[in-house]
Amino acid sequence: MPLYRLRAVAEGPTYRNFMTQLTDRPTQPAPSVSAESPATPTVDVAALGEHLMGRWGDVRRTARALAARPDVKRIEGQSMAEHRERTMGQLRVLVDERAVHRAFPKSVGGDENHGGNIAGFEELVLADPSLQIKSGVQWGLFGAAVMHLGTEIHHQKYLPGIMNLEIPGAFAMTETGHGSDVAAVGTTATFDVHTGSFILNTPFRAAWKDYLGNAAVHGRAAVVFAQLITQGVNHGVHAFFVPLRDDNGFLPGIGGEDDGLKGGLNGIDNGRLHFTDVHIPREDLLNRYGNVAEDGTYSSPIESPGRRFFTMLGTLVQGRVSLDGAAVVASKLALTIALTYGAERRQFTAGSESNEEVILDYQRHQRRLLPRLATTYAMSFAHEVFLAKFDDVFSGAHDTDADRQDLETIAAALKPLSTWAALDILQESREACGGQGFLVENRLTSLRADLDIYATFEGDNNVLLQLVAKRLLTDYSRKFAHAGAGVMAQFVVDQVNDAAINRTGLRGLAQSVRDFGSTARSVGNIRDEDSQRQLLTDRVQSMVAEIAGRLRPASRLSKVEAAALFNSNQNALIEAARAHGELLQWEAFTDGVNAIEDAGTRQVLTWLRDLFGLSLIEKNAAWYLIHGRISGRRAQAITSYIDDRLLPRLRVHALDLVAAFEFTAEHIGAPIALGEEKARQAEARDYYRARRDAGTLPVDEKSLIKGLRA
Amino acid sequence: MPLYRLRAVAEGPTYRNFMTQLTDRPTQPAPSVSAESPATPTVDVAALGEHLMGRWGDVRRTARALAARPDVKRIEGQSMAEHRERTMGQLRVLVDERAVHRAFPKSVGGDENHGGNIAGFEELVLADPSLQIKSGVQWGLFGAAVMHLGTEIHHQKYLPGIMNLEIPGAFAMTETGHGSDVAAVGTTATFDVHTGSFILNTPFRAAWKDYLGNAAVHGRAAVVFAQLITQGVNHGVHAFFVPLRDDNGFLPGIGGEDDGLKGGLNGIDNGRLHFTDVHIPREDLLNRYGNVAEDGTYSSPIESPGRRFFTMLGTLVQGRVSLDGAAVVASKLALTIALTYGAERRQFTAGSESNEEVILDYQRHQRRLLPRLATTYAMSFAHEVFLAKFDDVFSGAHDTDADRQDLETIAAALKPLSTWAALDILQESREACGGQGFLVENRLTSLRADLDIYATFEGDNNVLLQLVAKRLLTDYSRKFAHAGAGVMAQFVVDQVNDAAINRTGLRGLAQSVRDFGSTARSVGNIRDEDSQRQLLTDRVQSMVAEIAGRLRPASRLSKVEAAALFNSNQNALIEAARAHGELLQWEAFTDGVNAIEDAGTRQVLTWLRDLFGLSLIEKNAAWYLIHGRISGRRAQAITSYIDDRLLPRLRVHALDLVAAFEFTAEHIGAPIALGEEKARQAEARDYYRARRDAGTLPVDEKSLIKGLRA
Repeated sequence: MPLYRLRAVAEGPTYRNFMTQLTDRPTQPAPSVSAESPATPTVDVAALGEHLMGRWGDVRRTARALAARPDVKRIEGQSMAEHRERTMGQLRVLVDERAVHRAFPKSVGGDENHGGNIAGFEELVLADPSLQIKSGVQWGLFGAAVMHLGTEIHHQKYLPGIMNLEIPGAFAMTETGHGSDVAAVGTTATFDVHTGSFILNTPFRAAWKDYLGNAAVHGRAAVVFAQLITQGVNHGVHAFFVPLRDDNGFLPGIGGEDDGLKGGLNGIDNGRLHFTDVHIPREDLLNRYGNVAEDGTYSSPIESPGRRFFTMLGTLVQGRVSLDGAAVVASKLALTIALTYGAERRQFTAGSESNEEVILDYQRHQRRLLPRLATTYAMSFAHEVFLAKFDDVFSGAHDTDADRQDLETIAAALKPLSTWAALDILQESREACGGQGFLVENRLTSLRADLDIYATFEGDNNVLLQLVAKRLLTDYSRKFAHAGAGVMAQFVVDQVNDAAINRTGLRGLAQSVRDFGSTARSVGNIRDEDSQRQLLTDRVQSMVAEIAGRLRPASRLSKVEAAALFNSNQNALIEAARAHGELLQWEAFTDGVNAIEDAGTRQVLTWLRDLFGLSLIEKNAAWYLIHGRISGRRAQAITSYIDDRLLPRLRVHALDLVAAFEFTAEHIGAPIALGEEKARQAEARDYYRARRDAGTLPVDEKSLIKGLRA
Repeated sequence: MPLYRLRAVAEGPTYRNFMTQLTDRPTQPAPSVSAESPATPTVDVAALGEHLMGRWGDVRRTARALAARPDVKRIEGQSMAEHRERTMGQLRVLVDERAVHRAFPKSVGGDENHGGNIAGFEELVLADPSLQIKSGVQWGLFGAAVMHLGTEIHHQKYLPGIMNLEIPGAFAMTETGHGSDVAAVGTTATFDVHTGSFILNTPFRAAWKDYLGNAAVHGRAAVVFAQLITQGVNHGVHAFFVPLRDDNGFLPGIGGEDDGLKGGLNGIDNGRLHFTDVHIPREDLLNRYGNVAEDGTYSSPIESPGRRFFTMLGTLVQGRVSLDGAAVVASKLALTIALTYGAERRQFTAGSESNEEVILDYQRHQRRLLPRLATTYAMSFAHEVFLAKFDDVFSGAHDTDADRQDLETIAAALKPLSTWAALDILQESREACGGQGFLVENRLTSLRADLDIYATFEGDNNVLLQLVAKRLLTDYSRKFAHAGAGVMAQFVVDQVNDAAINRTGLRGLAQSVRDFGSTARSVGNIRDEDSQRQLLTDRVQSMVAEIAGRLRPASRLSKVEAAALFNSNQNALIEAARAHGELLQWEAFTDGVNAIEDAGTRQVLTWLRDLFGLSLIEKNAAWYLIHGRISGRRAQAITSYIDDRLLPRLRVHALDLVAAFEFTAEHIGAPIALGEEKARQAEARDYYRARRDAGTLPVDEKSLIKGLRA
């Protein structure tokens, strides 16, 4: 069974000890794809499109039909107030179209279809990211908090109004003073046994709730996260259902501010809230993971406050799932626009005097866009596996603690990579379209502005990657728990000597890795699937092992010294986590490719996967060279292979590969990707051709001079 | 005399054959800075600020005073129409404040102060990039074209109205179908001997002039670039003064469109123009570099059409100068905001239970911001030298063909690096400020949106870097012109064998380079100035030599084959050009550091320069490893030296280093960098401290459990 692979992760609890289990991984040959297959394979666009649509393709198609409707699409240039009202109206359209109920309990009319629910919301980014995020606030955060943190009484009392938008609500977790560090929020909910209610207070300005969608204008209620204090004890962060406004505005004790203009997502009314002696009935504590009895006694099904906190937060992972998916959709759209334009736009003559080149035929243009297309495919396949894992956990199909922890780790690894990649892809696409890319009508600048915040909300990307690193270290130390310090230290020394490959048990692959040092071989043997996997996996393992070695003294240090030691490895930890995430993407991409039956499609997708894998190795070539995993000549051969083989091969199929994203003209929107540029180019060429044929084109002074000299 | 250095470039015509002349460079010792100077040196902020202000500090200070005025600053959230009118009004303020005349001829009331003029406009980016760019359109492009491409008659007739804004104008060069490839514009100006006028025509849609500031609303005239055709011969692109509108709108034969909303810079009314049989008097050809007599005879002081074209375009280099400078100013502002916030914002506890860390004390945060601060200093010093070179050429002090070509090459190298860096710095600063960074009030998102287009206008960055690469190849081939093919081929082979260091004559340094391969030495000897220079210089030379070797067969190939060969090296060429630009920045930074007299300031700046230089080497470590210039152990030592030494040392001085940028509160604007965050943090800490002291803080459940277990 293949391990340390996203597919495997989604199928069972194998993520946990990947390093131990990796030992047992057989070298599984990929489906045979001849290295020298017929000159130009063809892509079965329709079948590839279906494959990319994935398990919830029907929901995605329904959502895309909605996203193509004029009343659901963004109108550019609206004022903030207009944009907010329009987005609110679109939420009502979603209610009318029954597009919001999928995740909710059947007891209140839902479908309990968690994966499909997210898939549908992700596609809304095509219409307007503000719509995606405001929907996410209402149903994915506010509603989901009531669903997951509340109990049946809360479901019956609040979910119907949340689902039909009678109760627009805010998700009041983040405070001005605390972003990603939720455990440290300052808001307090102190149980008062005399009135039988919790008293909410905001003790200082930094404890104001901040950046909350629906808080500035539309919110009638909120789920508020506060330190639960009863009988003089602080039991940590819990969630409360809190009414905010009636028709006359804020209720007594509640105040707030508008966050005002943002760098994007201005269709959402983000705002701040603060509470002064606001009384909440005891029953409005969302009490699934912690309850307070009438006499003030606290109880919880989870004894450890730390585990309780992470369990509560873990129920809210779906925000990260949907950001990851939206980043994939936006990246697909950006590359559809940039590659279509690049294949039609002509600029500069190269080989001939009069025919200008299509800019996508320039090597640099291919270098800019095709590796990003490969990354987008990797992100897309990885997201599909991530979404399946999410559905597995939330449907209850696989819902152990280990499953939930695995899901958290996958979310923390993939969301940073995809949201950063989306910004990078949107920007490169913008620049690749030049001045046209800067026009709002061509979509790229607005999408980039809206997606900017995806990198820091629902968990700052750098903080999330540290969670991944922590998990990698934990798994690593578990593996060595029985081995004692001597073995571990030895392991680290071995890393330096490059001998660790055998020791960690990468049987059968170790030999070929050692061969990478030989300059006698061609790039051939790192082009194949197993060699790429080996190089990518080895890097994650070695990085983790190296850091673990450096952190080892921490157990003997004071808390302050240990923190300093950890801090001095923080950057390396984050880079290790990134490498881990990239490996997950590569594994998902590879599984995705191997599931393709059509030989031509599989050949092209294999090239694209190779471009993804080899680009990762090229990007980290210094690491591979330093650690003796590849030779200098091999590193150069990888670059040549990308430039001279993969890019020209994939250039031929670039338009098919974006066609498989299945966007309609309504989704694309950008005139430059809908034939405008092609028509202009044709008109210009026809003009010159006609005048040349008629002999009415003026003589060029340059050719005149050449003629005189000849 | 030190060569291949920006300072040297500015002093004389030494850029041309840098590779030949590098042979003669003496190893000039840097002013002595003890490796182990007193524990914590101090920065003389005022003196450093003065140094950074540079030669035109007085003009910069005047412009900054203007940029701090409420009526000159941007109002966020205005509609496009409001923003356009406000920006136009601000141009009038500039006229009233005599801020626009500096560059113009004394004959029309100007100062002929070219460097100072640009310096002043650059600082306007602090108030609103739309103001900087709309000013640039009016006086830097439209006005400068009349000044540089026209003759005395045009100066007297048009410049006064351009200067006082009676004639707002557009610079009509770019066409929808032709961006960076100006030579291929489709607009024609055909001389009609009967009427004695040029007849302007737009032959097809792709030849519409596009993206022109002032074209959509305010422009009364334009300088239009068109193919000059007379007596059946096309003499290439020339500029014409063309009236566009009177009070009733477009004049006969002229039409256009509004470009509409853009990703930024919406204070500028960009638009499109087209011409149908528009008659222009013969005298309105801006005829400095090409004239047509009454009988239709064409004449030019420059015989070669190619050289003539590049000379005309070369007079318009100031746009690139000012974009480079504005990118520096914006980067300084972004880092002032992010570093100030990072030094005050607290998040997560590390060493102690209750004291949260200032986020700038996290290694990752330092890794994100401090190398970018080093880059900003490098850009700042490089820009100052660039501006001096510009002034030298345009004042006539050093105005040979070689000087102009050098200036073009410097512009083409620095503008791409600084405009890309500014986007990167603005984005990283935004993310480093989390949700606060996304609020428009904190400046970063709007600046980023506005500066986005800097990467592709006034020459697409990738196209500009190709110009640099072309120059590097030309200089290289000149050097070997006398040597014959055998030597050149040999040279390339030598590169691979790493023996080229002696051959290219890096006397005295070659030994230490070879020593880099030894793992016995510490990082010490690549920390010094000469070793960094050696590594950076060697890389540029070797890359150029390698590519030249690969391109060598081109002379024996058909045009189509040669183009394909060139294309297959396009990416490598652009990377070589980037390396060249980075070396220019490093040299300017080093000269800037060495000119500092105060020992403490020089020490800190030397660390910052080292961070810049070593970060470049780290970024390109794969190249250095592949080419045997450094060993793997040395590469790791560089990373450790950055992480363990340079970052912690510079962290201490980070606020001084941004204080030296000398921005006032009015320039910074962002509340999070003006004490707001600090006050919030203090209030929160005081709250907890008071309650802890009073014994009224609830007991933490966690500590309760610990207590029970103890």
